[in-house]
Amino acid sequence: MTTNELARFSLNQMTVKQLSLPDLVDACTELGVRNAGLWREPVRRYGVEAAARLVRDAGLNVTTLCRGGFLTATDPARRAAALDDNRAAVDEAAALGTDTLVLVCGGLPDGSKDLHGARERIADALAVLGPYAAERGVRLAVEPLHPMFAADRCVVSTLAQALDLAERFPAEQVGVTVDTYHIWWDDQAPEQIARAGAGGRIAAFQLADWITPLPAGVLNGRGQIGDGAIDMRQWKKRVEAAGYTGPIEVEVFNEELWARDGKQVVAETARRFLDHVM
Amino acid sequence: MTTNELARFSLNQMTVKQLSLPDLVDACTELGVRNAGLWREPVRRYGVEAAARLVRDAGLNVTTLCRGGFLTATDPARRAAALDDNRAAVDEAAALGTDTLVLVCGGLPDGSKDLHGARERIADALAVLGPYAAERGVRLAVEPLHPMFAADRCVVSTLAQALDLAERFPAEQVGVTVDTYHIWWDDQAPEQIARAGAGGRIAAFQLADWITPLPAGVLNGRGQIGDGAIDMRQWKKRVEAAGYTGPIEVEVFNEELWARDGKQVVAETARRFLDHVM
Repeated sequence: MTTNELARFSLNQMTVKQLSLPDLVDACTELGVRNAGLWREPVRRYGVEAAARLVRDAGLNVTTLCRGGFLTATDPARRAAALDDNRAAVDEAAALGTDTLVLVCGGLPDGSKDLHGARERIADALAVLGPYAAERGVRLAVEPLHPMFAADRCVVSTLAQALDLAERFPAEQVGVTVDTYHIWWDDQAPEQIARAGAGGRIAAFQLADWITPLPAGVLNGRGQIGDGAIDMRQWKKRVEAAGYTGPIEVEVFNEELWARDGKQVVAETARRFLDHVM
Repeated sequence: MTTNELARFSLNQMTVKQLSLPDLVDACTELGVRNAGLWREPVRRYGVEAAARLVRDAGLNVTTLCRGGFLTATDPARRAAALDDNRAAVDEAAALGTDTLVLVCGGLPDGSKDLHGARERIADALAVLGPYAAERGVRLAVEPLHPMFAADRCVVSTLAQALDLAERFPAEQVGVTVDTYHIWWDDQAPEQIARAGAGGRIAAFQLADWITPLPAGVLNGRGQIGDGAIDMRQWKKRVEAAGYTGPIEVEVFNEELWARDGKQVVAETARRFLDHVM
């Protein structure tokens, strides 16, 4: 594997959450990986400024920060707190030098059955956060999550819904995240990728494979690239045909990967990327 | 609860799979429940003719037989076996006196990543099975399953996809099953219900609620009516507005319900139906 072959590969930090931030940076440097997607919690534990220095000194490009969002609360105090937290996330993204903040928009409030209302509250929040982010050189990337998360994690379940939200705002403020794990089942997703590309809305492209059986809670059962049902190369072609030529993040939440040696997992993930994506 | 109040309520056998068929029939009779959806496996264990006699003597109306399907194999021998099995399912439905055979269409064959091809093989099978069923007074009811089942159980994930398949055939041969559990997250489902109704395609209407966290394997984590995120009354209104006035089956796969006294669960389910649906 060469740096040139891996030019578009980005390693999302969650794929190897067992690694400390310095170890992640070292592993990327050793393998010639030049891009990484980072997560707020480990970055904050390490210190945002220190993390920014670490990746900058290593010449590592931060492709996204994951994640803001959780914008569906009805309680005014909770809504205000969520907006504050998302402003902080924008500031952190700017400090890290990434132009993309991925948003997981939030599920239904306890006891609510109103999906439409929850989606509208996300739009209200984007109206506040979009300008704040754009002023700091950061774009919000609304991520549709698989419909199995609609109740408890993200009421935005399809790329069409994500675009319906994003298109209410300027493209430099709000884009979308295309993640194969969440959209692979959707026969409308190819045309929605074209729509997203035509509007300049593809802010991030992430990969994970679909494997079964799903574990309890379904969050940490994503598959390593090539292990599952998703035709990665075909999705990459669709996203490229829509005009996207940016980094491609591999973001796998998987207990088995997390139990292994992190640096080995980084190497395996880069290898899988070359074998199944490029 | 009166028989009149429960006129549209149908108890799907899987909700109380701990009950023998005679106990299920007794429980329905005692409570004034006049409709039930049956499953092939317990019916076959009891004997199809004996089961038909049992429900007929009790005056119980069989609203659906679950299930045929699993039509996505590529291997010729497996395809032939699946067609044979579905013809048998049609015969069983006819013997039980129901006009509706629910189809769970099948997932991806091992190692395949071709969702489109799998959906086309379903269409090929419907072309064979539709006339066979209609000649016996039975309609095939293609059920879209939640997208979390797309790989391993059913590549038909939305009502739109189910209708795209069904509409290739006469309405008396192939309809669709509308199940709240599978479609509640889909903002396009309301207009697809209207489409289904306009075409006379709503062959069955089933209810289960969405609760989290999902259990491992995600199959048996459905919620009792009223326990989850789904606005049952609103979905009922949509289906009625589309012209459907038939039975409404409650079909809950839930380990906790199965561990309880089955007759109590029948009574609770009927009560929940009146409180949350009618």
